[in-house]
Formats: sequence, C-alpha cells, structure tokens
Amino acid sequence: MRSVAIIGIGQTIINEQWGRSLRQIAAEATLAALKDAGCESADGLFVGNMMSGTVNNQNNLGPLVADWAGLKGTGAVKVEAACASGAAAFRSGLIAVASGDLESALVVGVEKMTDMTSHDVTAALATASDADYEVDMGVSFVGLNALIMRRYMHEYGWKHADFAPFTINAHANALHNPFARLNHKITLEDFEKAVMIASPINLLDASPIGDGAAAIYIVPAESVHAKTRILVTGSSSATDTIAIHDRPDALFLTAAYKSAQEAYQQAGVGPNDIDLFELHDAFTIMSSLSLEACGFCERGQGPRLGLDGEIVPTGRVPIATRGGLKARGHPVGATGIYQLVEVVQQLRGDAGDTQVPGACIGMAQNIGGSGATIITHILKRE
Amino acid sequence: MRSVAIIGIGQTIINEQWGRSLRQIAAEATLAALKDAGCESADGLFVGNMMSGTVNNQNNLGPLVADWAGLKGTGAVKVEAACASGAAAFRSGLIAVASGDLESALVVGVEKMTDMTSHDVTAALATASDADYEVDMGVSFVGLNALIMRRYMHEYGWKHADFAPFTINAHANALHNPFARLNHKITLEDFEKAVMIASPINLLDASPIGDGAAAIYIVPAESVHAKTRILVTGSSSATDTIAIHDRPDALFLTAAYKSAQEAYQQAGVGPNDIDLFELHDAFTIMSSLSLEACGFCERGQGPRLGLDGEIVPTGRVPIATRGGLKARGHPVGATGIYQLVEVVQQLRGDAGDTQVPGACIGMAQNIGGSGATIITHILKRE
Repeated sequence: MRSVAIIGIGQTIINEQWGRSLRQIAAEATLAALKDAGCESADGLFVGNMMSGTVNNQNNLGPLVADWAGLKGTGAVKVEAACASGAAAFRSGLIAVASGDLESALVVGVEKMTDMTSHDVTAALATASDADYEVDMGVSFVGLNALIMRRYMHEYGWKHADFAPFTINAHANALHNPFARLNHKITLEDFEKAVMIASPINLLDASPIGDGAAAIYIVPAESVHAKTRILVTGSSSATDTIAIHDRPDALFLTAAYKSAQEAYQQAGVGPNDIDLFELHDAFTIMSSLSLEACGFCERGQGPRLGLDGEIVPTGRVPIATRGGLKARGHPVGATGIYQLVEVVQQLRGDAGDTQVPGACIGMAQNIGGSGATIITHILKRE
Repeated sequence: MRSVAIIGIGQTIINEQWGRSLRQIAAEATLAALKDAGCESADGLFVGNMMSGTVNNQNNLGPLVADWAGLKGTGAVKVEAACASGAAAFRSGLIAVASGDLESALVVGVEKMTDMTSHDVTAALATASDADYEVDMGVSFVGLNALIMRRYMHEYGWKHADFAPFTINAHANALHNPFARLNHKITLEDFEKAVMIASPINLLDASPIGDGAAAIYIVPAESVHAKTRILVTGSSSATDTIAIHDRPDALFLTAAYKSAQEAYQQAGVGPNDIDLFELHDAFTIMSSLSLEACGFCERGQGPRLGLDGEIVPTGRVPIATRGGLKARGHPVGATGIYQLVEVVQQLRGDAGDTQVPGACIGMAQNIGGSGATIITHILKRE
C-alpha cells in the first residue's frame, strides 16, 4: 500500500448550532479542509456520523454532504461505529487512497445532536451499547461507564478527586482553542462539587455533546513535495464484545490494546515515542483505561499520570491538548476527526499556547461504545 | 491493487422475523458464508445496514455482529448509504482486501425492519431522501418515485400495464428461490387491479420490505486455487443530488450511468457482455431507469425490454433472476448483498430453475435514495 499524507484540515466551532442544518455544518468543515489543502475537489468522500438517522431524520449523508460541499457526483458513503465513527470513516478513506483506488479523499465527521431533548439524546447515545441486553435492562450509557469507574476505584483504591487532573487539564487547554465548546477553567473544588450524574460520575467527569464537524483531506504521500509532510504511519481497528458483562475483565480495554499494538508496529514506534496522545476522554475513567491499555502506564495507574503532572502539554504524555472530548466537546460522529485534526495542528506547530514542544509523532484513539470499537491512528511529521 | 475473489456466500429467508433479533439474523448469514468458504474467521467485518439506529435502537453493529458470529476482536464497521448500504459495505471490504490491508473480509448486509408500524417504517425509509427539502414538504419515498414514474409515462407515452413484465418476471423467478419473501405468480390482470399506493405506483410496482441478512466472504484471488473462481472485476460508486428537484433531468440516473461506465471500463466489458443484471427494482420505474442508464436500451425504452420478453432468465438481459427486490424482498441495507449473492449463484451454475444458461459475467447495481447513491459491481467466473 502507498503511504498517505494529510494536506488539509478544517473544523467548525462546537456548540448548539440550532440555526444551521447538518449539511451546512458538514460543508463548512469540508470546504475549510479543501481550502487548507489548496484543492477544489476530491475523488471520494467518507462521512463519519453516528445518529443522523435518528436525530436529523436523515440517512444517505454521502450524497447529501457531497452535493452541498460542491462535490456532486463523487462516490460517497457514511461510516458508522458509534462514537468511533469519525476514525472509522478516516480509516476507510485512508485505505481507499493507500490502495490506489482513489488519488484523494475527503473525510468529514459530523454530528448535529442538540435539536432534541436530552432524554432523547440519552436514548440515541445508548444505541452504542447492547440494545437487547444492556439498554433494555434500564442502564444508560453514562450508567455503564459509572459501573466501570466504581469498580476501578474499588479495585485500585483511587478516590474521586484523583481523576480531577484529567478535567482540569482539558479545560485549561480548551481555553486556547477557538473551536472548543467549553472555555472556562476548572479547579479541584469545582470538580468535587459538580452535580452527580451517575455515581461516581459527576458532570465534570463527563464530556458535553454538541453540534460540529471536522474534515481532513488526504492524498498519496508521493504526490506531496512540501518540505515537511504529515504522514499516517499507523492505523488499526479492533473490537470487543458490545456488552460489558460479556468481558472477562471490564477494567481493561482489550480492543485499545490490540489496535494500539498494531498501530505501533506499523509505525515502528512505541508509547515512549509518542509526543502527544489525543485519547477518547468521554469520561475521566476512559482516559485512565486508554492510557493503561496503550502502554503509557501500568494497569490501575492512569490517575497517577494526571496527579504527577505528566498529561499537560509540557508533560511526558500530553493528552487532550486542545481540550479533548471533555472541553473541546463531543459531537459523537465527528470526534474522531477532531482528534486527528488536533494532532495535525500539533505536528504543524500550529497549536499556539498549548503547543507540545517539538511534537513530531502524535497518536489519536477513538472509542465506540464502552470499548466495543477502538480505532488508533499514528501520525508523523517528516 | 490485487484481484479479489468471492469464495463464500450466505443468506437468510426474507420475511417478518419477529421471533429473532437483528444479531441472530446477521449471524445466520455470516456463519453460512463462513461455512460456504470453508473458513472459521476473517480479518475484517463490514456491515451494511441503513436503519438499525432508528428501528432497532442499535448502532455499533460492527462489534455486535462480530461478537455474535464468533469473530470477537475483529476490526468491524457499519457502512451506510441508505438502500445502497449493502453494496457500499461490499465495496469497503473489497478495497480493504484489494489493497493488502486485509487477507480476508466478511461483508454482511442486514436489516430488521418489520418490528414497527408501517407508518414508522415509511418515515424511516424517507430518511434516504432529503429530510429538509423533500420529506418536510410531505412527500414520502414512494411518492417521490411516483412523481418520476408519472413524468416518465407522460414523456415517453407508456401506459401503466407496460411495466407489468418487470413484476411478472420477478414473481415468476422468486417461485424457485427458497429465500424469497413472496412466492406467488402474478398475471397482467393482477398487476392492473392491485391497490394504488401513490399514483401511478400500485402495490405490484413496489417491492416489499422485510427482515433478512446476506453475507459474502472475499479473499485475494491469488490465494484461490480452485478450477473456477468468481472474481470481482468492476466496482464503482457515484452520487447525484439527494433531492430530485435539484437534478436537471429527473428521468436519467446520472450516478447509475457514471458508476456503470466506470465498472465496465475496469472489467473491460460493455452491456452486451453482461449475462445477467441484478438491478435495483425497488419500483418498476427504477428497473426502466437502470436499464437505460446502464446502456441496455435507449432512453425511454426500458419497458420495451420487458414487453419483448428480453428480461427473463433465457432472454437477452435477464434481470431479477432470483426474484429481485420486488419478490425476493427488500430488507434495505441487506439488498445489495443479496444481489451479489444471487449473481454468484448464477455464475456458479447454482440457480436451478432460473439459471441463466452459460452465465459467465454478471452485474449488480444497488441504489440508495431515488438515484442519489448508485454502486455497480461486475463479477466474472473464470
């Protein structure tokens, strides 16, 4: 397969965009990526989205977005893997370009999910879980994560406040990201007194939903003659059981381990080589589990990285450098593309006040369901 | 890219499967394809589905089906392109194997859509159209096709009975397909007196929905050492505007033309070389428009092929040889895979009473929306 380079990125602000339609948001990000790439069209379009059929009464996003973004006629599909839809769409586009099937591809992640009641959004998010054996039993998506977090705290002896650094770091970084949904600082006291959602997960353990879109333009690396290039050096997808009760060990993200290991192998690197890691911090517990499964610390020691100050942009394992899901926001099907866009910003040296010094290799990991679908990408500047 | 061969197929009966869940139906087809291929696992899984998020409250079908079919851990995603989701998923798997990313892939199309009221299914099907500019104006999916058919009849001077051969042929062929949803003969009189749905489309112009799944197992052709092989020689996807009113000419399927032309070119064939054509006969008018756009007859002359007896299994352009969408049934996200499975049956010489004599090259065309996404595949026995 050919090596693939990212030559364009685009994103919209994440918030409640009641005055704009799904296609408008998607097109804004798509056109921004086209402009950034200096191109006017693409050979193929891949749309990452989770819940447009339910929330927006709209499937068939391929032609919808292609048409609205001026790419009429282009082969276009939607790829869905719950909250990992963005990375799944990117991986589809990547393989199409790497294979020689396409000479260029646009990948856009989009979600417009604030047009309905929070009760309905909670139901829509629960479709990432096992409808028959989890959701029908009455557990919500946050409830599932709460069960995992409670068990994790019991098993490894952490208290709730030990997870605060994940949130504090995310909010501190989002302050410098003009596209982020939340832009206020969080203190340890704020974290501890936030309203409870599903014990032990409170409001500041959880990421906010939102409307937003992000897009990436990719081409064969051989066609890029710039002095520096951003290459995709690792890409891997793995799955686990969709229901958590079917896993022998609910505190280890097997699919994260598998996909990270494969991506490391492809890229010829290991955790120590990763300059920043945009992980899937939908809940603080997920940050811990991702860091552990990807080899950044021992099992059960994720919170230690935060407490030791290693996750900030100047630390050993910078995460959520542009705010992460927690503060940049989590428009579910778009999140995987936001993560990759942010890694590109870091590798280009365009991350401003939250720039990771000398960032050369970045990783992004997108999770669908409570660890059911996990997709890892590694990007490198050379 | 490497040449890819189909070595396994599987399918379930299509009907109202109220006693079985989506995952059970998907797994039945998947396991049948594995058995047919003589394999126990696959490197990747691609699920074609349109409306599980809405109808079954279940997204994240990749891990759901992987787990239930005994493929836990396998990278797996869902691909959606409305009623063309099946072919879109097949194309994703095809590119992954052709590129060298995977050494084998299972593609399963599944839809379980009879668990809700017909009003709700009509709303779910309408998500294939433009939600903002078509559906919100009050037109249903069948209504859109009715507008096209009415204009077509006016423009080319056909009467409703002229479309009867499409339905008569489909039902006659389905009689010999044990997986078909409908198994009764249709006469011209039946066709003309069927209840009206959206004038001029009556019940026998329209395909029935249903629950069902079909699956295909693919590998690099170089790994197959059998005396004969079924190769995928053409694959192309194209889009048009999602809203019909945005097209300069609503009576020509531009995306069908584009994707067929590209597939012909890849396969080095033309319409005259195609021994059978599994087209997307969701409505009789769509059969006409597909035949015309793919070059099997002049514009406006689709019904003539039926009236002249050319579309039956022994005719010049056999279509719907196992019943088509009209009589085999149309479980929307699965349909594209059923079409390909049926082409394989024909190329293997396993189509029994509706065998196309000497079938060597077969084509399948899957349509999402009223011509918005169109994906064409050409298979060859060698």
